[in-house]
Amino acid sequence: MGLPVVGMVGGGQLSRMTHQAGIALGLSLRVLADATHDSAALVASGVELGSHTSLADLRSFAGSCEVVTFDHEHVPNDLVQALEADGTTVLPGSSALRHAQDKIVMRERLAALGVPVPAFTPVATARDVEGFARHVGWPLVLKAATGGYDGKGVWVVPDLAAAEDVLRSGVRLLAEEHVALRRELAALVARSPEGQGAAWPVVETVQADGVCVEVVAPAPGLSEDDAVRAQELALRLADELDVVGVLAVELFEAASPTGATRLLVNELAMRPHNSGHWTIEGARTSQFEQHLRAVLDWPMGSTSLTAPWVVMVNLLGGEGAPDLDRRLHMLFGRDPGLKVHLYGKQVRPGRKIGHVTALGEDLDDTRRRAREGAASLRDGSWTHHS
Amino acid sequence: MGLPVVGMVGGGQLSRMTHQAGIALGLSLRVLADATHDSAALVASGVELGSHTSLADLRSFAGSCEVVTFDHEHVPNDLVQALEADGTTVLPGSSALRHAQDKIVMRERLAALGVPVPAFTPVATARDVEGFARHVGWPLVLKAATGGYDGKGVWVVPDLAAAEDVLRSGVRLLAEEHVALRRELAALVARSPEGQGAAWPVVETVQADGVCVEVVAPAPGLSEDDAVRAQELALRLADELDVVGVLAVELFEAASPTGATRLLVNELAMRPHNSGHWTIEGARTSQFEQHLRAVLDWPMGSTSLTAPWVVMVNLLGGEGAPDLDRRLHMLFGRDPGLKVHLYGKQVRPGRKIGHVTALGEDLDDTRRRAREGAASLRDGSWTHHS
Repeated sequence: MGLPVVGMVGGGQLSRMTHQAGIALGLSLRVLADATHDSAALVASGVELGSHTSLADLRSFAGSCEVVTFDHEHVPNDLVQALEADGTTVLPGSSALRHAQDKIVMRERLAALGVPVPAFTPVATARDVEGFARHVGWPLVLKAATGGYDGKGVWVVPDLAAAEDVLRSGVRLLAEEHVALRRELAALVARSPEGQGAAWPVVETVQADGVCVEVVAPAPGLSEDDAVRAQELALRLADELDVVGVLAVELFEAASPTGATRLLVNELAMRPHNSGHWTIEGARTSQFEQHLRAVLDWPMGSTSLTAPWVVMVNLLGGEGAPDLDRRLHMLFGRDPGLKVHLYGKQVRPGRKIGHVTALGEDLDDTRRRAREGAASLRDGSWTHHS
Repeated sequence: MGLPVVGMVGGGQLSRMTHQAGIALGLSLRVLADATHDSAALVASGVELGSHTSLADLRSFAGSCEVVTFDHEHVPNDLVQALEADGTTVLPGSSALRHAQDKIVMRERLAALGVPVPAFTPVATARDVEGFARHVGWPLVLKAATGGYDGKGVWVVPDLAAAEDVLRSGVRLLAEEHVALRRELAALVARSPEGQGAAWPVVETVQADGVCVEVVAPAPGLSEDDAVRAQELALRLADELDVVGVLAVELFEAASPTGATRLLVNELAMRPHNSGHWTIEGARTSQFEQHLRAVLDWPMGSTSLTAPWVVMVNLLGGEGAPDLDRRLHMLFGRDPGLKVHLYGKQVRPGRKIGHVTALGEDLDDTRRRAREGAASLRDGSWTHHS
């Protein structure tokens, strides 16, 4: 058939769902996984075991692929550059990827582009933090420049003593103002090498302990103007940073002194993202299909919604291993319209092991269904509402 | 996670798309395939190579599965019975399956149930055919009792000489009246072991040379009464024959002498079926997910449509191997909303190598988009309409 072979570094659920999307396109995703029980390795045929921090493993993997892409941003940038120097097509490329890998690089670039970001500064000493605190006050936020995810590597510190505890860890840090936010949003777009962009409706994301727990599409109550502004910002960033594939722009929605909505960029991710899982059923083209289309330089698919409201709730592991067979039986019996996605992962407390998506005409009802479905899978409970 | 292991005998596109659906449910379908390049074997991790006509291969495969199901009906019924005697859970079971394997058994059972079928009789000699022709006239239809598919094993014979040619092949035959049909329909349902049934909207199927080329959901112009009658017939058959999984009931729509619509059962298939490929995007629950839910004894999912009209057009191989990469590029550029499914199969003239699905508000427009999309993939053409 002659379709190019796409390889994805990382065997997590993003890779698993990308493989699922690729099946329809006539592809069989190649996966570089750490272990045979990795989420994607359980379901894909083209699995190579190896480490994403080993250049030898990456090179061997790249040798069997026409395009290499990622399900996380933890491949060291110099290794990505080495693959590029070998002539491997790596998308997104190293120069784009560094903005998703290093928060200091990202913040400085965005500030230089005039994109609204929280006040920030790199900090190495207590004196640096103290100086910054004089501008933004306490509490402030310290973030590891690299390696953080799902709330790891982020500390809200109330005073200098707490900041000093974090500084002692020795990681490269930046300090940020603690934004008084109304809520968090995400603008998800994709971009092809030709520069074609596609934006999904802007969503509201709800976090608990730094982990995304719920996504509502489209973001309730967001004005058309603000939605378009967020989409245009994300498309512009994709362009300026030369991103190929999916770009998720996590945004803080805050009130400006005049009462108008301020949108500040919090984080960037250059891959399918938790804030886009709702697109599997909720948009005509899922983020996983779109990512593949982008890295294959195929035109972008329609991002229209398939229902007025789509709500995705993450399924986080609790204590012990639930009898999922029994719980799915109950869930499907209660709500025949709910869509379930399980990642085949061992259950650990707080670990993302799946998600549930509800689609509907009414926001409150749709959100209730998604939440109840996830709760029933997580702990067997089902809240009755009259 | 402890979910049961489902094994599917056969490595074709139905198995491929069932695996794709199973990924969301936390499953990894095990596949008994003939060869590593089989459509499903290209994308699934749990592939066992073996023959579906070898009891040893089937037993070895069944040993690694909690439930065994099928992507075709070519496993000899006595081998299915042998697996059942071993204690293997086989769904649908041998006693249901025989009605999808032997057209004489099926016709006789349906006639006994009072279900409308074309006039038929088993035939072995020219005299048998001649006697039957006196009742139904010429042309009449000869069908191989077993092993036919996609128009193979079906002969419309204009006279006795032509019938004698078919008789000489030595296969077990039945003769049927040549129904003056308006069109063909299909009623697709699924049934769980507990007896829960679910029916998708009845569809119109369009055949060319005995091969399904197009499916329109819901069947245009079918009255609500006739649609419900067809669904109830299919649900009743699933129950009477104790089918577990998807049951496709292919129907002839004909006019009765009074002008009312007659619905006659043509064929049965007890597995995901070409007439249900539209459900992947067009229904809240796809036939592939539903088949898995049924064989796992999970409650059935919602069969609601996701758009007013859904049209699926099969992609049949033409001469030579197209540059699919280039053609997908063109297709996606022209119609960002079209959904493409490629099966990873080598192209041979007339072979089903994929399908295209369009969803829309307007029937004519939706059908045109699906047809143009398939034509552009098949031969690079794109008909312009003003």
